[in-house]
Amino acid sequence: MTAAKPFAKRLSIEQVEEGAVLAPKFGPDGFLPVVTTDASTGEVLMMGVMNAEALLQTIRTGEAHYWSRSRNCLWHKGATSGLIQKVVEIRIDDDQDAVWLRVSVTGGASCHVGYRSCFYRAVSPDGNSDPIALTFTEAEKAFDPVAVYGDAPNPTQL
Amino acid sequence: MTAAKPFAKRLSIEQVEEGAVLAPKFGPDGFLPVVTTDASTGEVLMMGVMNAEALLQTIRTGEAHYWSRSRNCLWHKGATSGLIQKVVEIRIDDDQDAVWLRVSVTGGASCHVGYRSCFYRAVSPDGNSDPIALTFTEAEKAFDPVAVYGDAPNPTQL
Repeated sequence: MTAAKPFAKRLSIEQVEEGAVLAPKFGPDGFLPVVTTDASTGEVLMMGVMNAEALLQTIRTGEAHYWSRSRNCLWHKGATSGLIQKVVEIRIDDDQDAVWLRVSVTGGASCHVGYRSCFYRAVSPDGNSDPIALTFTEAEKAFDPVAVYGDAPNPTQL
Repeated sequence: MTAAKPFAKRLSIEQVEEGAVLAPKFGPDGFLPVVTTDASTGEVLMMGVMNAEALLQTIRTGEAHYWSRSRNCLWHKGATSGLIQKVVEIRIDDDQDAVWLRVSVTGGASCHVGYRSCFYRAVSPDGNSDPIALTFTEAEKAFDPVAVYGDAPNPTQL
């Protein structure tokens, strides 16, 4: 962090767990894990990370910002795709090292593969197959990723 | 990993993103991030991590297992508190490096501080105070943590 941020210093476990000031704990890599849900349906849309700047930008602009580890830059979600996430509520967990973002999504989708949620597959109830099988939970894509992203590099890594 | 696990090898981006076999990608530390929600209300209860063994135990037993980084051991959630998380559904994300667990919770609470959810505070809508203020979203605790955990060490670290 190069500039002072309006975060409280972490002084005691009681203050962190029971206090009314934001005192986030970023990991050794400078990141907090974030889970983002659709505020109206409760569906988990995606998981990501924020550094201090992304958290502040999210609070100040009311639009979700993350740190992109694949592109190694601040990531204003939707800047490329138009699928902006408008912040409805920002929650912090007990020890203030994780964020829950409740959002409404322009266009209704958040996943680069084209689905509404990144979590479009479930472990099949008969979990005894080898390899373990997955079942799709979304019947069709919400948008065409090629039309939206063109030939931008796919962030998925093997 | 000491034994072969029933996970598929990651062969291509198409297989990982659009395939019907579980091919999880654990981080360099051996962990996947996990978000756990209440299957009936959609509320985010907690975030944690799983190693391969925790993911397999969760699939095979139908009860949430995590890796406890504070205790450095496999963690059968609820073994101490009785607040067992019964698995309703296990989702995996697009690139298979994050898990969404939908559960029902014995006793209705998941947070060691005594609240229903670990995310019992929200960033106040007037995000311009310094430090930034938090507002409680749960009016009272669901259980008394002292009665449940006694003098077990608090996992929160400054």
